[in-house]
Amino acid sequence: MKSDIDAIMKARNLDAIIVFGNAEHNPPMYYLTGGGHVSHATVIKKRGEEAIFFFGDMERDEAAKSGLKLIPYSTYDYEAISKKANKDGLLAGALRCEMMLNDAGVTSGRVGVYGTYDLSATFGMLSHLQKLMPAIEFVGEAREDSIFMRVMETKDESEVARIRKMGKVTTTVVSKVAEFLTSCNVNADEVLLNEDGSLLTVGDVHSKIRLWVSEHGAELPSGFIFSIGRDAGVPHSAGNPTDLMKLGQTIVFDIYPAEAGGGYYYDFTRTWSLGYATPEAQELFDQVKEIFEKLNDNFDLNAPFKNYHQMACEYFESKGHQTPLHTKAPVEGYVHSLGHGVGLNIHERPFSSLLNGDDHRLAPGVVITSEPGLYYPEKGMGFRIEDTLWVRPDGKMETLADYPYDFVLPMKNWKK
Amino acid sequence: MKSDIDAIMKARNLDAIIVFGNAEHNPPMYYLTGGGHVSHATVIKKRGEEAIFFFGDMERDEAAKSGLKLIPYSTYDYEAISKKANKDGLLAGALRCEMMLNDAGVTSGRVGVYGTYDLSATFGMLSHLQKLMPAIEFVGEAREDSIFMRVMETKDESEVARIRKMGKVTTTVVSKVAEFLTSCNVNADEVLLNEDGSLLTVGDVHSKIRLWVSEHGAELPSGFIFSIGRDAGVPHSAGNPTDLMKLGQTIVFDIYPAEAGGGYYYDFTRTWSLGYATPEAQELFDQVKEIFEKLNDNFDLNAPFKNYHQMACEYFESKGHQTPLHTKAPVEGYVHSLGHGVGLNIHERPFSSLLNGDDHRLAPGVVITSEPGLYYPEKGMGFRIEDTLWVRPDGKMETLADYPYDFVLPMKNWKK
Repeated sequence: MKSDIDAIMKARNLDAIIVFGNAEHNPPMYYLTGGGHVSHATVIKKRGEEAIFFFGDMERDEAAKSGLKLIPYSTYDYEAISKKANKDGLLAGALRCEMMLNDAGVTSGRVGVYGTYDLSATFGMLSHLQKLMPAIEFVGEAREDSIFMRVMETKDESEVARIRKMGKVTTTVVSKVAEFLTSCNVNADEVLLNEDGSLLTVGDVHSKIRLWVSEHGAELPSGFIFSIGRDAGVPHSAGNPTDLMKLGQTIVFDIYPAEAGGGYYYDFTRTWSLGYATPEAQELFDQVKEIFEKLNDNFDLNAPFKNYHQMACEYFESKGHQTPLHTKAPVEGYVHSLGHGVGLNIHERPFSSLLNGDDHRLAPGVVITSEPGLYYPEKGMGFRIEDTLWVRPDGKMETLADYPYDFVLPMKNWKK
Repeated sequence: MKSDIDAIMKARNLDAIIVFGNAEHNPPMYYLTGGGHVSHATVIKKRGEEAIFFFGDMERDEAAKSGLKLIPYSTYDYEAISKKANKDGLLAGALRCEMMLNDAGVTSGRVGVYGTYDLSATFGMLSHLQKLMPAIEFVGEAREDSIFMRVMETKDESEVARIRKMGKVTTTVVSKVAEFLTSCNVNADEVLLNEDGSLLTVGDVHSKIRLWVSEHGAELPSGFIFSIGRDAGVPHSAGNPTDLMKLGQTIVFDIYPAEAGGGYYYDFTRTWSLGYATPEAQELFDQVKEIFEKLNDNFDLNAPFKNYHQMACEYFESKGHQTPLHTKAPVEGYVHSLGHGVGLNIHERPFSSLLNGDDHRLAPGVVITSEPGLYYPEKGMGFRIEDTLWVRPDGKMETLADYPYDFVLPMKNWKK
């Protein structure tokens, strides 16, 4: 939680942190400032002190909403700085940043660098800044274990409420998609039809999903997956827009909307087969469902997340599938890891991969996905079930948005 | 244009470039790969050679659409690498990147670093990589003058067609908003009403704008501005959602949608006053309109962009307003610069600020905005008119989407 930031900075021997970039679609900046329409900003926080928000004057109203201590960039005479830098933009940026660090009382020690931003300009600027301020050591941290990933890992109740609200948006949209699909007419080739009688494509469904998410004021900043047949068997294929929507084929619908402006995400997947399912598909779906439920029954407070990934691997191997436990980068079977944390990042701590340490655990306040799946692209099928779960302070696991797990969705206007 | 990339690399003494991050919402990566649902990827291009696209195996179908030479990350045994790195994620990343650079034939020289991505992890990884590969000098470039800003500055016809298409989406949405607003009923306090009789707020209008943009399959990755009264007088205020929509107040509607997935932008602004305008507002609007038209009449092939910013400053100063020409960071009057290039970045080369060199010019193939404005937050009013213009290869300037400039929009159900 945010209140842990000074303690974690101390544990990592960081004297200050500096965050670059926009307030939106930039998790560390959003986390500190609360988001809003502020671009090319900087936040400097010395350990144990209040964070300072440096921003362009034109965005002063938006910046003020952060509640942070504010310093507009116009405090620094950029024209004079630019002249001093002989119009070298990177050096000018470094000279201004030096003034900002001085104003924040950061003149020595280890300073962590963060933000999702232009790598080239920031790397170039930091190279100059490092020479201007040799008493400071600028350091980067591994994404999966940065200070921000650590403080963000545990959510407070207001954050959970926001994730839950996105869960409600998610299930409302998913239910609208199911209602739409099952109401379609079907032609003699078992292809779904639009109202005007044209063939319904995956691209048509994509458009509806985008629209319905937007109706709820949410966004899809990391895209979404709605794919059928072979593409459903490739875990991260978004779905081929020209594919036809046919009965009896597996559909993987993985949707992860976020609050507008780069806020909190929800992550959710269902697998459907319209009208009927082939016996082989039904069998594989049942396996995914079985381990999904078994995991839910076994999640334990403070247990390492990877234990459950291992449990899923062992289950799937017992059914004859390849998994990462004994196969390197399998392309068939259970090909990914079990889940990940969800928050301002669609993927954040804790992670479930076997390569991770035991410190990725189901600690109180953590919000994770559980998403076992099976993939057989050559057979033209794929399966995944995913919910977002909150490890409550009382130690219970709570699914943040309920939705049925039905595989076969009966068509209203079609019978075999 | 993309075909210039090797020449510009040579002119800058860069032997290779390396781009990090997702293919979406990451202009350099999108530019090289064509976008798509590919995350945490890397592209390495040695000067004079084909670019190589390194990607996660699960996203192989999406990566294949790029048409680039493909190498999946699974080529490199990450488990062994991680062991060698003693589980230090940054070092492991650097060891893998070293192998990738070797496979791309990049073992020495100057290598430019690009992408919109996690600064912390990339900075930390590059610090290790620099030590592993001392014969390489990794360099960053200033944002406004990077290789990518240079190659992207001049658009080919297919890029212009995509920007033009977003222009069509823009004007369609803007016309829908105008139609909606002017059809509203109005109460005795001159406040617009929703259909159910409740007071119409800026937030209500924001929701409709988001929905209508989404209906066209476009996105608002950098937000948008729809603000009224005092907020219209603060150039970058997105608009206060609880403000009421009232007659006779200036509305600044600045909208910059992009193709879904982080593609090409359009940029557009109109200023409206519903029902009637105060004489003072009408006078200031007329000034903005006059200089907007004068600029259109004066744009000349290959002229420095800043000349036109200077022309706007001189015009506004002649009318008694403050401008950046003789006032530092003014908060009243004409407070920003005239315009900027538009493409995969909402703001890109050429720029019009007086600090820029003459190399920011209206060269053939450049797409720019022209957006003079006046801002008086204390008076509760602001004004801006903006179109996106293409400098055609034949030297003519073409507005890429036509839309009326009317200031006062008559209300259908209201008369003074």
